[in-house]
Amino acid sequence: MAGNSIGQAFRVTTAGESHGRGNVVIIDGCPPGIELSEEDLIPDMERRRPGQSKVVTQRKEPDMPRIMSGVFEGRTTGTSIAIVVENTDQRSRDYTEIMEKYRPGHADYTYDAKYGFRDYRGGGRSSARETLSRVAAGAIARKMLRGYGIEVVGYVTRIGHIHADIPDPASVTMDQVESNIVRCPDQGAAEKMIELIHAMRKDQDSIGGVAEICATGVPPGLGEPVFDKLKADIAHGIMSIPAVTGFEYGAGFEVAGWRGSENNDLFEMIDGEVVAKSNRHGGMLGGISSGSPIVVRASIKPTSSLSKEQETVNKAGENTTIRTKGRHDPCLLPRFVPVGECAVLVALADHLLRWRGQAPEQYRKYVESRGK
Amino acid sequence: MAGNSIGQAFRVTTAGESHGRGNVVIIDGCPPGIELSEEDLIPDMERRRPGQSKVVTQRKEPDMPRIMSGVFEGRTTGTSIAIVVENTDQRSRDYTEIMEKYRPGHADYTYDAKYGFRDYRGGGRSSARETLSRVAAGAIARKMLRGYGIEVVGYVTRIGHIHADIPDPASVTMDQVESNIVRCPDQGAAEKMIELIHAMRKDQDSIGGVAEICATGVPPGLGEPVFDKLKADIAHGIMSIPAVTGFEYGAGFEVAGWRGSENNDLFEMIDGEVVAKSNRHGGMLGGISSGSPIVVRASIKPTSSLSKEQETVNKAGENTTIRTKGRHDPCLLPRFVPVGECAVLVALADHLLRWRGQAPEQYRKYVESRGK
Amino acid sequence: MAGNSIGQAFRVTTAGESHGRGNVVIIDGCPPGIELSEEDLIPDMERRRPGQSKVVTQRKEPDMPRIMSGVFEGRTTGTSIAIVVENTDQRSRDYTEIMEKYRPGHADYTYDAKYGFRDYRGGGRSSARETLSRVAAGAIARKMLRGYGIEVVGYVTRIGHIHADIPDPASVTMDQVESNIVRCPDQGAAEKMIELIHAMRKDQDSIGGVAEICATGVPPGLGEPVFDKLKADIAHGIMSIPAVTGFEYGAGFEVAGWRGSENNDLFEMIDGEVVAKSNRHGGMLGGISSGSPIVVRASIKPTSSLSKEQETVNKAGENTTIRTKGRHDPCLLPRFVPVGECAVLVALADHLLRWRGQAPEQYRKYVESRGK
Amino acid sequence: MAGNSIGQAFRVTTAGESHGRGNVVIIDGCPPGIELSEEDLIPDMERRRPGQSKVVTQRKEPDMPRIMSGVFEGRTTGTSIAIVVENTDQRSRDYTEIMEKYRPGHADYTYDAKYGFRDYRGGGRSSARETLSRVAAGAIARKMLRGYGIEVVGYVTRIGHIHADIPDPASVTMDQVESNIVRCPDQGAAEKMIELIHAMRKDQDSIGGVAEICATGVPPGLGEPVFDKLKADIAHGIMSIPAVTGFEYGAGFEVAGWRGSENNDLFEMIDGEVVAKSNRHGGMLGGISSGSPIVVRASIKPTSSLSKEQETVNKAGENTTIRTKGRHDPCLLPRFVPVGECAVLVALADHLLRWRGQAPEQYRKYVESRGK
Repeated sequence: MAGNSIGQAFRVTTAGESHGRGNVVIIDGCPPGIELSEEDLIPDMERRRPGQSKVVTQRKEPDMPRIMSGVFEGRTTGTSIAIVVENTDQRSRDYTEIMEKYRPGHADYTYDAKYGFRDYRGGGRSSARETLSRVAAGAIARKMLRGYGIEVVGYVTRIGHIHADIPDPASVTMDQVESNIVRCPDQGAAEKMIELIHAMRKDQDSIGGVAEICATGVPPGLGEPVFDKLKADIAHGIMSIPAVTGFEYGAGFEVAGWRGSENNDLFEMIDGEVVAKSNRHGGMLGGISSGSPIVVRASIKPTSSLSKEQETVNKAGENTTIRTKGRHDPCLLPRFVPVGECAVLVALADHLLRWRGQAPEQYRKYVESRGK
Repeated sequence: MAGNSIGQAFRVTTAGESHGRGNVVIIDGCPPGIELSEEDLIPDMERRRPGQSKVVTQRKEPDMPRIMSGVFEGRTTGTSIAIVVENTDQRSRDYTEIMEKYRPGHADYTYDAKYGFRDYRGGGRSSARETLSRVAAGAIARKMLRGYGIEVVGYVTRIGHIHADIPDPASVTMDQVESNIVRCPDQGAAEKMIELIHAMRKDQDSIGGVAEICATGVPPGLGEPVFDKLKADIAHGIMSIPAVTGFEYGAGFEVAGWRGSENNDLFEMIDGEVVAKSNRHGGMLGGISSGSPIVVRASIKPTSSLSKEQETVNKAGENTTIRTKGRHDPCLLPRFVPVGECAVLVALADHLLRWRGQAPEQYRKYVESRGK
Repeated sequence: MAGNSIGQAFRVTTAGESHGRGNVVIIDGCPPGIELSEEDLIPDMERRRPGQSKVVTQRKEPDMPRIMSGVFEGRTTGTSIAIVVENTDQRSRDYTEIMEKYRPGHADYTYDAKYGFRDYRGGGRSSARETLSRVAAGAIARKMLRGYGIEVVGYVTRIGHIHADIPDPASVTMDQVESNIVRCPDQGAAEKMIELIHAMRKDQDSIGGVAEICATGVPPGLGEPVFDKLKADIAHGIMSIPAVTGFEYGAGFEVAGWRGSENNDLFEMIDGEVVAKSNRHGGMLGGISSGSPIVVRASIKPTSSLSKEQETVNKAGENTTIRTKGRHDPCLLPRFVPVGECAVLVALADHLLRWRGQAPEQYRKYVESRGK
Repeated sequence: MAGNSIGQAFRVTTAGESHGRGNVVIIDGCPPGIELSEEDLIPDMERRRPGQSKVVTQRKEPDMPRIMSGVFEGRTTGTSIAIVVENTDQRSRDYTEIMEKYRPGHADYTYDAKYGFRDYRGGGRSSARETLSRVAAGAIARKMLRGYGIEVVGYVTRIGHIHADIPDPASVTMDQVESNIVRCPDQGAAEKMIELIHAMRKDQDSIGGVAEICATGVPPGLGEPVFDKLKADIAHGIMSIPAVTGFEYGAGFEVAGWRGSENNDLFEMIDGEVVAKSNRHGGMLGGISSGSPIVVRASIKPTSSLSKEQETVNKAGENTTIRTKGRHDPCLLPRFVPVGECAVLVALADHLLRWRGQAPEQYRKYVESRGK
């Protein structure tokens, strides 16, 4: 039942399969007057695109977004924005194996169990190709949030056994992230990660990792008690991305080993504003933004598609084996970064608009003034 | 803007503050004909109640739920069910400190930033007292799910540095969980956890931990592509609970260090059903239940309220210190268990009803037959 | 599936049956800082109450609302507001007839068809008693809208063959409406209506009518293209009220006989504002408020419960007859007025908050200034 | 805020302006396994198309829908269905007048008031061109509902002073409706209506009317208490269509003059089923379908665009006059019929899926069997 939307005030609805005619996204609720063109979407979509570097899949998908509505004379009109990305490459391939066999780690079996049949071509609706719609929506949220001084930057902090050292999430820049092909701002770690990914590919295997996303400039007060806490809505968005197996914010799972006296971030006054001296709370208290940078992390599993032979079963209920042909990402992390950012961007845009509707006057003025 | 509801087909809406007149929850969408009375709610509410043992807060809250509507002659009618729990203890206490000072780790500051003022008594709407509404709703979901053969059991797997050994989540029983006051089915670990909590209390400190929740009997096919994946909706529910800082399912964050060939769960046929040989995928593939047990975990921070003195600021913008008086849980984990279970129960009830509406006939028959 | 809510930004969720323990309503999304107490709810609830005059049912229901949450020190906190009204009169009556027979014009049969059984006492959830929750919610919306200079007044324009003459809906005052017991501001017509209702009661019969509701002070710009047009959302609210069989705004069904040149309201400039010279458009163009008074009408059927004998069938599938005992309204119109007002109030509050979130700055300022 | 969706279980989201690149609709929640291709959409879209006959606008819009997703090998997959209709005719016309002046009866002024500016080309988002998305969605709902034996047929019952005589709504066939260009099954009235429309066109004027829509085969039990009553949700859909000024079902506004004893439809047993002897209740009791045919009506205003000169104002705040050039419908009724049908179709599809999720087993079986 109707699960292809996220957000309430800034609502994103998507459709499209991996090898269908195209992907479509409708963004409903974007305020009027924001400058917008396809040029604004392309950078983030390029960062998500296959074939962008040697560490990602070598498939070619020249994804050109077309804004069909909601923009007039270069500005959003306040009405719903539709974006269509045609699938240029719909050649009839050999899908015999994937059609009849359930790939381990994929949704082939669960889709069949749920719907009785499935569009098996390239994973159909369960393919990560659908995330390009999210990235297009996120790029619009990014433009809107910049008007309030909010920036969102994601990056890789771990691949396999290699951990990056990120002393201050809030100071990582998009340039640093984009300076290498694994999107890790720790250059030393980045080089080792690249080596590791190459080794995985040679070994017909894949490798998992962790990405971190940081939002700066977020005013205090975003997030709705009690179910639509900001932490809950960001988690919803992040966990709805394919291959994500875990979510945490601030100190995350580490708090399990801590005492309250170690974990609590103490407040102090700085320049007339209430400021937390530390950020183990990841910018959210009671599920509402505190004004500190919002820091969240996601764990991403190793690509399930392997050229190696794996045991599985087929639709006829027989045990068999499968080798997934085709060009797959040996590591999903580099391309996850822009997708993960977009989950945070959409949640922030949604909560900004939600709270703007209900907010007391002085709060609204304060928020409005931040981007100026 | 309207953030006090969760679920779509099985929708839970709550209201109530810690020291207001009472807590109210409306459950909308529960099917007709389910046997229900207050007796069904009390066991789970007792498990959440303060004062139930020596390792939780010693506050007394004899929470008696009253079902106001939606039940007739002992059965649900299919219309909305309202449950009211009066706050019996509304004595005027000394709230001077909490009124003027922002407690570290709490939502005092963020509520003030958001709303301009707040009900400061006992934390108001940000207090975990609100979770009793969730537990009442979850108890109804539990009754409904039992008709389909679905059971949900939660337990503590870690407190501080003490880790429990849980060889098979699916075989943990409610009796095992309830056999000790920390709700850890590993009795040896449980004893050490109890000791640790006592040490924390003596030290005017608190300690964090991890809880795991396992749902068995879930049919394959629950969860909606693409944003309302089952993993995303469970994450939303879990992350909306106070003090939760992280969520993972199956292998969770561990996958970051793994190869695809290590992580993929291989399928085989057993008794004519497609079965995964292992459960690193935590019972969900592509965000849809696979038929394997659903296993999720949450990290819970140490209680922020400390009798120890902590630095902070006050509403007037001055640096100051605070000692939070009152009887607080030195460790939130034992009381988190029933609340976490309810997040899973509500998500499963919601998705079962959502999919029941859209499902092809043969699937529906299969699911209906499971509880019989 | 979850149909007991209305509104998105100002969301109202209700529960409760006619003869259950009580009625409960949760209002989610009300802005913080609005002065509110039970005293604000009682006037509208008194206007809806049975037994208030000789032309309505003589049942006694001393409905005392209790605000359980969301209000602190006399002001709304911005969190969800729960209101409980206990049913004081739950005596076990003789429900044999209504239990076994389907009353013509009532929902007895359709509830049984839908749910398999029903709470038959007094109509259960299908009883108009449920509208007291709507009135409580509407009273809160009224308080909020007054801060923007918006007023909503309803009145009866027709009962049976007696039509009132209302030259200018926007100038009808609440005092005029409340000056007689049928709530018709045309005093001459009101007297005839009262006579007619008395005649109906004597005849063991009932009579239908039409009510009109007018909202003044509504700024231009409320209403969301394309499905949530203001006219559509008001219609949704009005048509969801028991016994309502039709809805129209402005010239309504009369336009069917008109030419475009007769129907179009022409614009002119007055004091620097765009103003429509006439109001056949009922204050909405393209489903968005135009700044002219919003004028809507509803037709209400004659009470279905009759002391007269009527043919019907019973649950056992036998033809039979029924006389509905008890004290029923011989005409629903006088008590419909406050309920209809509340549908308009809730829709306006919802759309004001929705648009406030997305609105361009200058619009927002304009709207904010109106109530001052 | 996000007003471009309707329905919950069968959810329709639209985007697109009159003279933008195209119109886009996403249908979310359609069950899997329904045979569907563009061929299924074209008949209803042709009925809505401009230029189809002499009584409608002579604009040419060869609207070819492209199903982008959600259909595989000729059957719906259960995932979201996107349909794109490109706007073939985007020539740069002379929009000077409409750009600067507010057309009476149109949304030009209210859009400007709401958003600060607007896409003025052909009315932008407020244009009735948007209804082609609704018709595409409705055509899918129609296919789905046919599987349950449900049929929906609309027709014109009044244009200006000419009333059709429709003795039995449930027996009107699509063939009868399509046998003349005004879509009125009373052939004598149809001829007079056609004459009247021609007279209006000659006179540079337009004319209003009433259309009726009847759904047969609807099982008892659809509609959700208390806000999402079937009558309320159908009203929402119908009232969200451009130019609709009123809605009624069954006896509608006529009940205002009736007594309860005249209005109540009495029940009797026929072939073991509970049947209402008459249908003044329009197939809905308590907002839930009764099994009788659902009969609703809408009043549609005369086209606001007139070639005649009309007084108005411009954006600069000056009084002026306007003649709306271009080829407009002299009467909207013939093209309204398929659009109105679709509002009913979508509401029924939505409620069928909603109730299917929550329904008791025996009800579900009964409903499933109806289409067989």
